[in-house]
Amino acid sequence: MTDLERLIQLLARLPGLGPRSARRAALHLLRKREALMLPLADAIAEAAAKVRPCTICGNLDATEPCAICADPRRDDGLICVVEQVGDLWALERTGSYRGRYHVLGGTLSALDGIGPDQLNVAGLLRRAADPKVREIILATGATVDGQTTAHYLIDRLSGSAVTITRLAHGVPVGGELDYLDDGTLTAALKARRPL
Amino acid sequence: MTDLERLIQLLARLPGLGPRSARRAALHLLRKREALMLPLADAIAEAAAKVRPCTICGNLDATEPCAICADPRRDDGLICVVEQVGDLWALERTGSYRGRYHVLGGTLSALDGIGPDQLNVAGLLRRAADPKVREIILATGATVDGQTTAHYLIDRLSGSAVTITRLAHGVPVGGELDYLDDGTLTAALKARRPL
Repeated sequence: MTDLERLIQLLARLPGLGPRSARRAALHLLRKREALMLPLADAIAEAAAKVRPCTICGNLDATEPCAICADPRRDDGLICVVEQVGDLWALERTGSYRGRYHVLGGTLSALDGIGPDQLNVAGLLRRAADPKVREIILATGATVDGQTTAHYLIDRLSGSAVTITRLAHGVPVGGELDYLDDGTLTAALKARRPL
Repeated sequence: MTDLERLIQLLARLPGLGPRSARRAALHLLRKREALMLPLADAIAEAAAKVRPCTICGNLDATEPCAICADPRRDDGLICVVEQVGDLWALERTGSYRGRYHVLGGTLSALDGIGPDQLNVAGLLRRAADPKVREIILATGATVDGQTTAHYLIDRLSGSAVTITRLAHGVPVGGELDYLDDGTLTAALKARRPL
């Protein structure tokens, strides 16, 4: 295999790129050798060497603990539990949450043989026992596995003094009712709020 | 900017990846550190250092001349002229061409200020003068710029002894007539062949 074929084959393994777009990406890189190709090779190698899961929350960062766990301005009383680092990033982009996080690393799944020991549940229970923690927000997905995981965590946390909450279900902002599924509409009706 | 943010920003500049898929790609890479992330960093750096345009035909390869120009089993009498390296790859994937190539590096374009001097036209004229060359296949795109470029090349090559041909226009294999544009159908009718 030539150097170019190897590059294209590896690029094609990125999510979102197929063989065709991997070829286009390789040509694009070779056209922007100084401005993009070399910096990208550096950035990948650098991140591979430095970025690690935070031992406290599971977030990915080049520092230990991660920038979020180390930030003294964040509220120690709130822990938001998410499935994956991508979910944490999505919540951070909103700019509307100033507590801490806990990344489970997935959901419970009987089908895939993923039990509590494969997720960072023990770490969450340990953190929940800290008297500083007032509230744990369960922000797992609204999927069957996400909800199963949330219920399991409610169970395990039931002995502790913390308040347990979950994200609201409802009509997405900007969404049209006509295009919404029945489950979401039912949830939005049930959770209706006085004006 | 953190190492991770830098990686995502650079990944987002690949064609086919936006900010969202760049984040997914970065997480995917960090999950497959040994199997994908480190090999990809290597492959990009390696290709950036080694892959160069062939001085004969303009194909990209780590060897000089490129593997196609260096292959003694290929027919020296045929030169297929393409706009870009991606077009050369597309023709190679068909496995039905065993001649040489010539990559122009684009098309003539008054709008973008691209004249014959910005393309590898001089190299083509030099190669066409070789008595071994019997036929030059113009495989520029069926766009306005591609056709303008082809006509310009026909003009410049008119003095030489080589036969000049172009790719056939017609109904794409597997294509339905009903969905085809008028221009292609007209071309297919005009170029109809006896059975």
